[in-house]
Amino acid sequence: LISIAFDLLGGDKAPEETVRGLVLAMEARSDFVTYAVATKEIFEKYNKILSPFVTSGRIEEVCCESVFEMDDEPVRAWMNKKGSSLHKLVDLVNDGLACGCISLGSTGGCLVAGTLGVGRLKGIERPAIGVLLPSKQGGFLLIDAGANVDVKPKNILDFARMGSTYMKFLGFENPSVGLFNVGEEKGKGDRLRQESYELLSKSDLNFTGNMEGKDAFFGKFSVLVCDGFIGNIFLKTTEGVSDYVRYEMRDAIRQSFMTRLGGMLLYPALARLIKRVDYSNYGAAPLLGVKKVFLIGHGRSGRVAAKNAILQTVKLCSTNLIEKVKIIGES
Amino acid sequence: LISIAFDLLGGDKAPEETVRGLVLAMEARSDFVTYAVATKEIFEKYNKILSPFVTSGRIEEVCCESVFEMDDEPVRAWMNKKGSSLHKLVDLVNDGLACGCISLGSTGGCLVAGTLGVGRLKGIERPAIGVLLPSKQGGFLLIDAGANVDVKPKNILDFARMGSTYMKFLGFENPSVGLFNVGEEKGKGDRLRQESYELLSKSDLNFTGNMEGKDAFFGKFSVLVCDGFIGNIFLKTTEGVSDYVRYEMRDAIRQSFMTRLGGMLLYPALARLIKRVDYSNYGAAPLLGVKKVFLIGHGRSGRVAAKNAILQTVKLCSTNLIEKVKIIGES
Repeated sequence: LISIAFDLLGGDKAPEETVRGLVLAMEARSDFVTYAVATKEIFEKYNKILSPFVTSGRIEEVCCESVFEMDDEPVRAWMNKKGSSLHKLVDLVNDGLACGCISLGSTGGCLVAGTLGVGRLKGIERPAIGVLLPSKQGGFLLIDAGANVDVKPKNILDFARMGSTYMKFLGFENPSVGLFNVGEEKGKGDRLRQESYELLSKSDLNFTGNMEGKDAFFGKFSVLVCDGFIGNIFLKTTEGVSDYVRYEMRDAIRQSFMTRLGGMLLYPALARLIKRVDYSNYGAAPLLGVKKVFLIGHGRSGRVAAKNAILQTVKLCSTNLIEKVKIIGES
Repeated sequence: LISIAFDLLGGDKAPEETVRGLVLAMEARSDFVTYAVATKEIFEKYNKILSPFVTSGRIEEVCCESVFEMDDEPVRAWMNKKGSSLHKLVDLVNDGLACGCISLGSTGGCLVAGTLGVGRLKGIERPAIGVLLPSKQGGFLLIDAGANVDVKPKNILDFARMGSTYMKFLGFENPSVGLFNVGEEKGKGDRLRQESYELLSKSDLNFTGNMEGKDAFFGKFSVLVCDGFIGNIFLKTTEGVSDYVRYEMRDAIRQSFMTRLGGMLLYPALARLIKRVDYSNYGAAPLLGVKKVFLIGHGRSGRVAAKNAILQTVKLCSTNLIEKVKIIGES
């Protein structure tokens, strides 16, 4: 039986949506147990919903005293809030009670909890966040999506290796790796890009060269590797453009009776499209390079996204992902 | 009478669309003359279309021998192709015959022609490309959009100043300036961002702090300042996401009879939306920090975009933009 730890207090919509998400996950799959972390008050409030699972032994309630707030400086909060939900999560995996853990944020808090609390795998200097994004060919992994602002070429190579390993677990054979750059030709970009290109070329990865942001969504590769600064900017720009297009589309539909009618007829297809483009639907992001399975869900997640994130954690716990990443650090 | 120089050979759709665009511009405004640069063969081919304007003295044909190709390395081509259309363009503004010039690309070629051929203004270490993008509040300027990959904080300050000056010419009063970063709080980002933040805070600009890519399109500021690496990535990501949404939307419309009907009813509004999001409609990008008005049009431009780019050049030539930018360099 797989056991995971889940932070009921993480994310913008906690605890309402995290509690509901956990119940949905429990109902969807019966082969795992969960250490659910929250304050005493929250457990009392949701007692009716959670108690059947507690009675059957599928949920164990673990009390914490505080939570990382959005405006907490992560490292400082890690030092000062020893009774936080993230600390409990880390204790549960470090003690071997849970095989892996998942929180819906804060991202900065999770990053610190993973790096300082769980600890880096030997040889992996910088753990990285991988985010799965949609594309014409079924999706690609952006790594590092924001964990590391200043990096060296060796770190980029590690990111690419970890990303490639992760994508294999998602069923991509020999995943192609693109280096995020400002042009396709070799020799483009700053020194970091040029030196990373060299390292990637010499590696055993399926490296396909430099890639530009405009090609990312058309499926020319499965892993898009970059430093966390670029990754963060890419991710937020993507979010900004989608939001803007959605806003303009709503505006376009409201223009006249005919456009409203058109919007109604198109609605189901448009809703699917929006869902496809919205990366909060693409599950949780793995923090790769730490000693345990550690997933970071999107802060905006509702109950369905929370459920998917939990099930993804369960799934990863049943693989030997950590052993595979460990080999990268040791090589 | 304003006189400008126009490169009939620049852009993906040259010469057909550049010639048509020039004619449209000539018809739209009668208070300027154009030095049109092309090879002898092109002038012969389009003789019938151009000759009325040549006869009336509004177009002067200037022959060149070659053109920068997409795969030319710009600096090398600048050294070797002395008879290129970009060289002629530069000669025309340097000799004082034309007050400003415009080419639809290559961007790299224009950058080199502007920086090495026309020359930097005193005190401006790095000229920068400003690109106007749509937003909820009527648009913002991204600067530097790709001219400089490695920069110093002082350069970022110059970019912000030049961008702010340019936006004033477009009618924005006291334009607000945001620093492109990975978080909104002060102290975010790498050292370049942190030091640039300090310089911008102490400047006389209307600096509103750090800005994230997701807010760019919702009009929180008029100038988004960054290094050319980030600028290029932002621009191409924007392009990629718009293209992807457009592709998915087409797919959504094709799903059934009802969605096709919906698409038809929505079509006029959607076409407007796509036009709004497509930055090739947002005119040409100024290369700021060089001694003359130098605009770089989008390579994808058709005749209407070419016309707009030409008229924009004429308009800028009638202002004292260069004097204002000169003051920045001297301060």
